Amino acid sequence: MAVIRASAERIGDRAARLARIGAAGTAVTRLGLTAEERRAHDLVARWLAALGARVRHDEAGNLLGRFGGDGAAVLIGSHLDSVPEGGRYDGALGVVVAVEAIEALVAAKAALRRPVEVVGWADEEGVRFGIGLYGSSAAFGRLPANVERRADARGVTIREALRALGLRGDPRRARIRRGAVRAYIEPHIEQGPRLARRRSALAVVSTIVGIAHARVTVRGRQDHAGTTPMAERRDALVAAAELVAAVEAAASARPETVGTVGEISVRPGAKNVVPGECVFSIDLRAPRERDIDATLRALRAGARGVDRRRGTTTTVDLVNRVPVTRLDADMRALLRRACGAAGVDAPDLVSGAGHDAVNPQLDGVPTGMIFMRSHGGSHSPRESADPRDAARAATALAEAVRELCA
Amino acid sequence: MAVIRASAERIGDRAARLARIGAAGTAVTRLGLTAEERRAHDLVARWLAALGARVRHDEAGNLLGRFGGDGAAVLIGSHLDSVPEGGRYDGALGVVVAVEAIEALVAAKAALRRPVEVVGWADEEGVRFGIGLYGSSAAFGRLPANVERRADARGVTIREALRALGLRGDPRRARIRRGAVRAYIEPHIEQGPRLARRRSALAVVSTIVGIAHARVTVRGRQDHAGTTPMAERRDALVAAAELVAAVEAAASARPETVGTVGEISVRPGAKNVVPGECVFSIDLRAPRERDIDATLRALRAGARGVDRRRGTTTTVDLVNRVPVTRLDADMRALLRRACGAAGVDAPDLVSGAGHDAVNPQLDGVPTGMIFMRSHGGSHSPRESADPRDAARAATALAEAVRELCA
Repeated sequence: MAVIRASAERIGDRAARLARIGAAGTAVTRLGLTAEERRAHDLVARWLAALGARVRHDEAGNLLGRFGGDGAAVLIGSHLDSVPEGGRYDGALGVVVAVEAIEALVAAKAALRRPVEVVGWADEEGVRFGIGLYGSSAAFGRLPANVERRADARGVTIREALRALGLRGDPRRARIRRGAVRAYIEPHIEQGPRLARRRSALAVVSTIVGIAHARVTVRGRQDHAGTTPMAERRDALVAAAELVAAVEAAASARPETVGTVGEISVRPGAKNVVPGECVFSIDLRAPRERDIDATLRALRAGARGVDRRRGTTTTVDLVNRVPVTRLDADMRALLRRACGAAGVDAPDLVSGAGHDAVNPQLDGVPTGMIFMRSHGGSHSPRESADPRDAARAATALAEAVRELCA
Repeated sequence: MAVIRASAERIGDRAARLARIGAAGTAVTRLGLTAEERRAHDLVARWLAALGARVRHDEAGNLLGRFGGDGAAVLIGSHLDSVPEGGRYDGALGVVVAVEAIEALVAAKAALRRPVEVVGWADEEGVRFGIGLYGSSAAFGRLPANVERRADARGVTIREALRALGLRGDPRRARIRRGAVRAYIEPHIEQGPRLARRRSALAVVSTIVGIAHARVTVRGRQDHAGTTPMAERRDALVAAAELVAAVEAAASARPETVGTVGEISVRPGAKNVVPGECVFSIDLRAPRERDIDATLRALRAGARGVDRRRGTTTTVDLVNRVPVTRLDADMRALLRRACGAAGVDAPDLVSGAGHDAVNPQLDGVPTGMIFMRSHGGSHSPRESADPRDAARAATALAEAVRELCA
């Protein structure tokens, strides 16, 4: 059995070439289902074709490059879109690593008895149409109803965007039939500080956090800021400020739980008027459902207490709830061994961000993820990763594919 | 000496006629330096002319109707503009009461040896150009520099707005020379609940609160809401929420002090991003300078504490500072007597709102204000007042004018 050797140099070169598509200064803007994303697909398609793949787009706009015959395949890859003014590595590095794993397997003349397919998921970020994990949701039957009619800010629908890309306009046709995927493995940057702090190049993802998005509306009473004594106010913002603090306290009180208020607005929003209404968002995440539920309960109780003391009326509406996704135990064990073969003692890590890997796992496909160490946060031009870490991930991925396809 | 009899019926009728100018449903929108405000001026001008006044506009757009000769006059009145979707009485009722005082003096054949002038100040609310108390500031030499170049949201300058009203475009020409005004008296609704609670129709204003407007910027660190542990965040909004609570606490701790955060915004303002920056307004008011100063000091100290604990960087910029204005002691005594003659034992009251009366008082003109009981708050269509209370104010004003002009 030949030794697998992934090339950090080739990975760095390919990542840099992808980063030029949609670049402005150091930032990358390559939104899903746009011409920029398609240019990135075309570049990856050329790499895949050069390695002998049969390359195609499915009806959702996902890029697929198949090595081997028509049977059930091992699927590897990530996404090729970015957020506005994002970085070079979120998503893109995972696809480059998947291509490199194939390159290394080909160079090692590895005997694969089953097919492998490299995927570049379309529109993972969901910026243009508001539907995150769009491409993998289409492939694994988890799209929202009537998704093709969803429109972007200019009124262009997903159907029209797909037609502009030469497709028929019905993303449901991308549904992969059950049993056609034997396993899915996604390499991705960590987007957080934990691997860097542990001085570890790679991790095996154990669980992708559950997410609850809530919208909170606090109704008080609009009053003149000069003529209304403090004791007689029902200030919606002061009440909301207590709840913002409560989100921090409630999330901090539970292990691995995070809670964020990222949007807030007041009405009428004039400096000399006591706010009559305040609306804000809550994003809660945890690797255990019970921690999300308990945090939500604590916040609802906190809101009732604030309303009682302040005479306000607060409603907490749950807008979206993504379940905690525990990745396949056998795949995790396989990836841990594969990382070991690449020279890395990879710890288990919870993912605080959502990933395309949620969709195959929830559809019954054994799914695993490899995290690569990253710096500079995420969704930002400061995001960075070391091609040598990515080469270790490519080696591990190639080892895992060789084992799965043997 | 004939008895002065003001008419509640006439006041109610005139207030209703004014309220139709700029009306939409129960709300009134009559912004300063617009055609609507001018229509209100024209209506009042007809009433004044019918009573024998020489009516004119000064170069700032203030309406003036003079009774008697060219000597130093007693000036009475208020403003005729409103906020967007405001009420019928804020400002307008004071002008109607001034007209009614003249009407009652004329009917009583009162012998006035000195001139009286009724004024309708232009653009007291400062909505269109951002300059509150504009007309009275022009008359008493307190306009900001280059005010004529200030533009509204459409780019129209004050100079252009004045020219559209048939004036020359230089509001500084409205400056009243020193000594030309012997006294100024402004009747105005209270815009607060205190007179209603005391079951008193009228009050004499003792002091107009000082105001400090500050703009607070909290800088933290923008982060991914999923991948950034709670303990590692520098969340600008959570820090700001502590300061919003501190504004309430600091104002509540001092007598007659109020503090309001009426505007707040976060960047980048996405539900899944930890806010990197939060900007909010503070409006602080108190009848004693030391309470404003102490509250500001407490907030700055609070901000330093938050920054130390949270790793944020907070700046508190003082945007505007209106001094506490204590109204003339002799005028207050005169108005107390005049209210007594109108059958009202008027208490002293602090004004929590700013008023045109600040400008003559700060320019050395003996100034007094009569508050009329009002309901339903202020700057709202719910604002209401009883014409019988206004008639008592008109009687008191007429008595005061008779004494000053005897």
